[in-house]
Amino acid sequence: MKIPAKHIENTVDQIASLPGIGRKTALRLVLQLLNRSESEIHDFSSAFTQMKEHVLFCSNCGNISDTPICGICSNENRDHSTVCVVEDIRDVLAIEGTQSYKGIYHVLGGVISPMDGIGPSDLNIDLLINRIASGKISEVIFALSPTMEGDTTNFYIYKKIKNISIEFSTLSRGVAIGSELQYADDVTLSRSIVNRQPFVL
Amino acid sequence: MKIPAKHIENTVDQIASLPGIGRKTALRLVLQLLNRSESEIHDFSSAFTQMKEHVLFCSNCGNISDTPICGICSNENRDHSTVCVVEDIRDVLAIEGTQSYKGIYHVLGGVISPMDGIGPSDLNIDLLINRIASGKISEVIFALSPTMEGDTTNFYIYKKIKNISIEFSTLSRGVAIGSELQYADDVTLSRSIVNRQPFVL
Repeated sequence: MKIPAKHIENTVDQIASLPGIGRKTALRLVLQLLNRSESEIHDFSSAFTQMKEHVLFCSNCGNISDTPICGICSNENRDHSTVCVVEDIRDVLAIEGTQSYKGIYHVLGGVISPMDGIGPSDLNIDLLINRIASGKISEVIFALSPTMEGDTTNFYIYKKIKNISIEFSTLSRGVAIGSELQYADDVTLSRSIVNRQPFVL
Repeated sequence: MKIPAKHIENTVDQIASLPGIGRKTALRLVLQLLNRSESEIHDFSSAFTQMKEHVLFCSNCGNISDTPICGICSNENRDHSTVCVVEDIRDVLAIEGTQSYKGIYHVLGGVISPMDGIGPSDLNIDLLINRIASGKISEVIFALSPTMEGDTTNFYIYKKIKNISIEFSTLSRGVAIGSELQYADDVTLSRSIVNRQPFVL
């Protein structure tokens, strides 16, 4: 697909550099943007530079924030003795969306994945270990993705802190609520039978 | 989904304003952009303003261009007596991609669609009629989408220029090459039987 205007070609290339967006989709988005006014394009464009310039990561947990310490870590009403370890900022938003967790978080920024060249030193693990070693934390909830990489990361962190006497837990694993049993995968179904829970009305 | 940093929230809103992109996808893209360096973000951001500032539309056919007259209209080797009428710049790219058309184009910028409030005056139709009236054109190919709106637009243009003695044609309609007959829709299949073509080896 040869685009006959170099500035449009350049914008298409920039949008297509985003994950999951191909050149055809990028062109569709660019042509939609072209219909907007100059001030709308200016607002669109400056959002990216403003974001890069002003965004902060909480120095305590690694979450995105407008302030040096994020709103969750600075909230006195939350349980500061329970830390939920997540992979990504989106996981914080997803758990916050459930409104059923009142503790604080620790964002690793990824999981250990030798295939992608991501080792423990690339992640926010040392800070987590310091937080746990400070003695103010009584429970660590591992809420990483239930994949090989997630489990490896859980195990790596667990090994580093197992001598500290705190409680460890992971998210419960089993069949999803609202799903049909026959479509659950074998591993999940088999684990959900082995780890069956007491029936509560 | 409440995002705890206003500049990220703003960028997510901007990306989610693009057609077909929701807030979850927008956040995924924004977090990927956050990992880039400042100069990369600057290049990304300035692509949009540069595009808006510098893009030109060919004053002859309405195609995007780097010059006042586009590369197709200014190409002496093309057949300037055949004009292919298309809805959108993407259609020009698609037809050019086939390498089987050597004429020139006319980009309408849409089709007549009363439902969306788009009337003939919102489209690049007057310029097309002037081009045809100039007497330099011997064939007009209607290459609009085979929809109600596309057919209405074809008919509107045809009515305006039917007194000028030139040839009119439309893209051939029928079952797609490589598709399975049983999945073709009824209307297409029925038309492809009525309008059957001579068998050529």
